[in-house]
Amino acid sequence: MADIKTCPPLSPDSIREAYALIGPNIHHTPVVTSKTLNRIASSPQAASALKGTVFEDQRPAKPVFRLYFKCENFQKIGAFKARGAFHALMRLCDQIGVDEVRKRGVTTHSSGRSHTLTLEAPIANSNLLAGNHAQALALAASTLGVPAHIVMPSISTPSKIAGTKSYGARVVFSGSTEPERVAVVQDIIRETGAILIPPYDHPDIILGQGTAALELESQVIDLLKQPPSKGDIKKDHPLDAVLTPLGGGGLLGGTASYFSNTPSTRVFGAEPSFEGGDDGRRGLAAGSRIPTVSTLTIADGLRTPVGEINWTVISDNKKVQGIFAVTENQIKEAMKLVLERMKLFIEPSAAVPVAVVLFAEEFRRIVEREGGEEGWDVGVILSGGNTTVEAIQKLYRED
Amino acid sequence: MADIKTCPPLSPDSIREAYALIGPNIHHTPVVTSKTLNRIASSPQAASALKGTVFEDQRPAKPVFRLYFKCENFQKIGAFKARGAFHALMRLCDQIGVDEVRKRGVTTHSSGRSHTLTLEAPIANSNLLAGNHAQALALAASTLGVPAHIVMPSISTPSKIAGTKSYGARVVFSGSTEPERVAVVQDIIRETGAILIPPYDHPDIILGQGTAALELESQVIDLLKQPPSKGDIKKDHPLDAVLTPLGGGGLLGGTASYFSNTPSTRVFGAEPSFEGGDDGRRGLAAGSRIPTVSTLTIADGLRTPVGEINWTVISDNKKVQGIFAVTENQIKEAMKLVLERMKLFIEPSAAVPVAVVLFAEEFRRIVEREGGEEGWDVGVILSGGNTTVEAIQKLYRED
Repeated sequence: MADIKTCPPLSPDSIREAYALIGPNIHHTPVVTSKTLNRIASSPQAASALKGTVFEDQRPAKPVFRLYFKCENFQKIGAFKARGAFHALMRLCDQIGVDEVRKRGVTTHSSGRSHTLTLEAPIANSNLLAGNHAQALALAASTLGVPAHIVMPSISTPSKIAGTKSYGARVVFSGSTEPERVAVVQDIIRETGAILIPPYDHPDIILGQGTAALELESQVIDLLKQPPSKGDIKKDHPLDAVLTPLGGGGLLGGTASYFSNTPSTRVFGAEPSFEGGDDGRRGLAAGSRIPTVSTLTIADGLRTPVGEINWTVISDNKKVQGIFAVTENQIKEAMKLVLERMKLFIEPSAAVPVAVVLFAEEFRRIVEREGGEEGWDVGVILSGGNTTVEAIQKLYRED
Repeated sequence: MADIKTCPPLSPDSIREAYALIGPNIHHTPVVTSKTLNRIASSPQAASALKGTVFEDQRPAKPVFRLYFKCENFQKIGAFKARGAFHALMRLCDQIGVDEVRKRGVTTHSSGRSHTLTLEAPIANSNLLAGNHAQALALAASTLGVPAHIVMPSISTPSKIAGTKSYGARVVFSGSTEPERVAVVQDIIRETGAILIPPYDHPDIILGQGTAALELESQVIDLLKQPPSKGDIKKDHPLDAVLTPLGGGGLLGGTASYFSNTPSTRVFGAEPSFEGGDDGRRGLAAGSRIPTVSTLTIADGLRTPVGEINWTVISDNKKVQGIFAVTENQIKEAMKLVLERMKLFIEPSAAVPVAVVLFAEEFRRIVEREGGEEGWDVGVILSGGNTTVEAIQKLYRED
């Protein structure tokens, strides 16, 4: 990575610069709306849904939503991670020169989720479940002619290994625990001089991910210009809120940085509550970052703790107005609605902010209270679509 | 329906008129491309895949494809059928007056696929599996303020009944066989004067469905204008071929009618071969339409025989250059690729033309021979996305 001291500040202007840099290398993904989802989200939850929560026996909130879904499942490699990987690599090339980067190469290791899944059950075609960051880095490196060394557990399925190799990366095998993988990465760095590109805990990654928020806002402005519309109300900043999934904090940190000068657009994070996966929310309550997380939530992209640099943004209540957590069943129900009603193929992590909109009563009360009868225009970043038919079968098997 | 004698000819101009009429009531669905699908489609099949076919021991074809997918899964009610239903109803209003249509109402019955599925196993949320035409008519009728009587088997699941009612239609119950449902429709017509809107066998339906082809061509022209492109080659008619699923023949008939003055764009139909579901192909071979079909193919939207009027278009070899059939496994494999790689949620019927591109060796040989090294630009109409997580689980259970 580029030296952190050389990185631009986490500001909207830096994200505009990042966008100018990576624009030609990423997809300008669509923003879609759905009357059906608006209707469901704008209906109060059943009283029974609040049973056993602090809202039991209270009147369910009746918020009014107009939702705008940013389809990063259609992004290159099937997830927003392509943005951060391209930005980090292109900034690195700017800083130390492309020849130097090509000489040394880059490295990272496949994220925890593939590791866990591999241990649980081998899944055919599971290259689609490989760490999104590893695939994103492999793609960015091959695009820029840079050698990439991706560390993967040796027990990975052949199709997953082939999938990562198909981006032109060199696959290096390791043991299946996190320390074993980190050790192999360090060996590679020692032997080849390769530069580590971490998945989220770096300003260049955060700024790259923030470009999804930039595109989203600009697309919603265009959508609202089309008839029928209310005209020029809130023209410059039409969104009342944006929700993103929160794992390591690259996407939420980038989104919050982009809107950091726009108080009318509140930014919220969405986490799985299963087995303490809501480390961001717990960290805010405790007043400090939770450094380790161990959860097997189905939202497998969100199993990681929030990164240190990411935490400086996320814990700033002028930048992130709240973090909400949802249950495994709520994530599954939200994912089912997006698949069946919106016809969009997404991974469970991407369904987490949708579940917050539909089921997090605390959030829904804020929208009812602050949005009133006019309601809120809310952006939701559908972070990725890297799952498989087999994984979906397994996910809903017990239903 | 409007009297057939008053219907415009099945020509491109009539489809342009249909589009002007229904445009404001339908979604302008996106056209998407996929490098991954282009790469897979442009790779020769494994020699083993041709085993047991007439191409066994021959060199597998090496066609070159640039594919353009027309996403009618994002159409209103989740399928292209909204186009035909709106067109038929609006033409009827033009012909006999909207007041008369509102007084009499319209009727149809839910298609065979929901019937069969209901008999096999009740599926939760199966309003998504209700006949697409029935839902399309219910939507068009409610939009235009016309009463709609939809005949459904009384053994339909409550959620399916609720789904059809949610469009404002009156649901009338019948026995579960086709003759029983037709009898109830005839009762309704006698009692209320309601006008029957058939699902495919009428010029107004065919012309309405043809508007998907019109949009597709215009969108591909726009896409090819964007850099990087080869410039102005084949600017007016960029598509070398278009493939659509073939069930009753509304979509294929409309597509073939739209391109009937454009010999450089060949039109092909795609059918399931299971249990004689390839009645279009067999009809061409026999020299006459096959009037009845009885298949439980997973492509449940394609279980119907080709309609009589549809047949006049489809059997005209200047309009339709060929019909190809694929197996159940080929449909499943194609559907899996569209879900996992393109992140588009589609129903099995929509995967049938994709399966032809990937697996129908006879078709692939044509593309290799006529497209040569430059290859073909091929449009594929993804006809709908009305399936469920449960149906997908069942579909791939034995794998």
